[in-house]
Amino acid sequence: MGAWLLLTSEAEAPDLTFRAERAAVAAALHAFCDTYLCDAPGAVGAAIRYSLLGEGKRLRAVLVNAAYAAAGGVGDVSALAAAVEVVHAYSLVHDDLPCMDDDDMRRGRPTTHIVYGVPVATAAGLAMVPLAARTAAAAARDLGLDVPTTGAIVRELMGAAGGAGMIGGQLLDLEGEGRPLALTDLERIHRLKTGALITASVRLGGLAAGASASQLDAFTRYGDAIGLAFQIADDVLDVTATTDQLGKTAGRDIALAKSTYPALLGIDGAVTRAEALVEEGCAALQASGLLTPQLEHLARYFVTRQS
Amino acid sequence: MGAWLLLTSEAEAPDLTFRAERAAVAAALHAFCDTYLCDAPGAVGAAIRYSLLGEGKRLRAVLVNAAYAAAGGVGDVSALAAAVEVVHAYSLVHDDLPCMDDDDMRRGRPTTHIVYGVPVATAAGLAMVPLAARTAAAAARDLGLDVPTTGAIVRELMGAAGGAGMIGGQLLDLEGEGRPLALTDLERIHRLKTGALITASVRLGGLAAGASASQLDAFTRYGDAIGLAFQIADDVLDVTATTDQLGKTAGRDIALAKSTYPALLGIDGAVTRAEALVEEGCAALQASGLLTPQLEHLARYFVTRQS
Repeated sequence: MGAWLLLTSEAEAPDLTFRAERAAVAAALHAFCDTYLCDAPGAVGAAIRYSLLGEGKRLRAVLVNAAYAAAGGVGDVSALAAAVEVVHAYSLVHDDLPCMDDDDMRRGRPTTHIVYGVPVATAAGLAMVPLAARTAAAAARDLGLDVPTTGAIVRELMGAAGGAGMIGGQLLDLEGEGRPLALTDLERIHRLKTGALITASVRLGGLAAGASASQLDAFTRYGDAIGLAFQIADDVLDVTATTDQLGKTAGRDIALAKSTYPALLGIDGAVTRAEALVEEGCAALQASGLLTPQLEHLARYFVTRQS
Repeated sequence: MGAWLLLTSEAEAPDLTFRAERAAVAAALHAFCDTYLCDAPGAVGAAIRYSLLGEGKRLRAVLVNAAYAAAGGVGDVSALAAAVEVVHAYSLVHDDLPCMDDDDMRRGRPTTHIVYGVPVATAAGLAMVPLAARTAAAAARDLGLDVPTTGAIVRELMGAAGGAGMIGGQLLDLEGEGRPLALTDLERIHRLKTGALITASVRLGGLAAGASASQLDAFTRYGDAIGLAFQIADDVLDVTATTDQLGKTAGRDIALAKSTYPALLGIDGAVTRAEALVEEGCAALQASGLLTPQLEHLARYFVTRQS
């Protein structure tokens, strides 16, 4: 957090816990489930609810909100933010499957396939991608956005989810298990697997607020930098934190013989790299007049978080 | 085909081979691959291309075109029609996987997982759902549609793909293998797994052409009826046709101990049911003034096709 905190009286201090935003996103996720899952075969609908409605930091949703506000948006963007969380939740369900990372704990609870079985969890994860597209389109309509922006929002979110985003990254990740990767390969995986959705979150907030092309470009540079920093911090936490702290099994990367940043750069080197990326991301926003306290705080939180 | 054929001179006869429509859809699918797959990791992009660009009857795309024309649409709806084919292609890739129907031939070629392996084929299938959403949003924009219609189009297509559509149906199908199903269970599976996308194809054509609510309702009844007829015909062909005719392995339903319409109704009973559904679907369109020669021909083709 920067010097601005010292200059702000308590009454004006921005809420850096994002409690209101996270509550609004949780409400939107509940509404999606009620609206869209009524016709889903019982177990699939239940598994989607389970995956969506657990505890979560909702960092991507908070990023959508913060970028929207930074670009001057004044409406309620929580439904769009929730659509991003649907894509994120999909990726967690599939990441945890036995054929991927084979993990049985997530956010302090049994993973979806442990509760509902592998076929239902697989189908539930699959079904969350179109669910996200539907809810993003509905959110854009409810925000009163124009046609090009509505289309751009759907394309942005689905691009981050797709073969050139998260799904492509999951595959590369899977292919990379058990063999050593160079730093450039590792960064490519993470850019697709984690970075694409983080960057999209920031850009979606900007798009919904009518950001200019140069503002969107600054949001992209910020998102790319903090997205990579986030993944480096994730790799570090996998080594340094306990299962209790993480709410998921610690030490999985070593168990799966995955290439990680700490393995390639050492823990100190990885932390230094992550911190440099945070500075780089914030500088990109600063240069475009978009660096709000919220966006700066989020960038720093991405690497200082303990879970 | 009805009596109208006798009243039409050769010059005015509608093209019931839909050659032009299918060529335009193939061109749109190539364009999608060139536009959207450039960043996908090599094997995923290649597997998506392989899955999309093979031979296919493109019946769903032709339905989009025919419904669009019937509702008075005069633009080029082929990109939207191609987006429907992307969802269909996704379902074929996943249906053929070893964990689903475990089939190694499709459209006369090795299935995607035979060529690219199971992990790549799984990821490619997954990635096709967001690809379809992106391309549908782009198609709506290029057609110059308004915001509510654009949103409705994305929601329609993703609804048909999702947990209350194809993905939910695939799961029920999987759960139903090896145990006897009642006719109502079987119809529920097929309504989700096959019917949802066929109905959506018809409705998407209507939506793009600005069809009224009552016209959309007629399209829904037509789509639901011919969608079920299509599946019944599929089950019959699995028993009566050869692998060569089908371009996929014949007799798979018996091998997988699946409940089918011929098993429940007998072959003659199944054919009679399918024909009655075609009449029912055409009557719904007729009552709304939407029954064109193309839509009637397609409905009949759905049950008379030999592959």
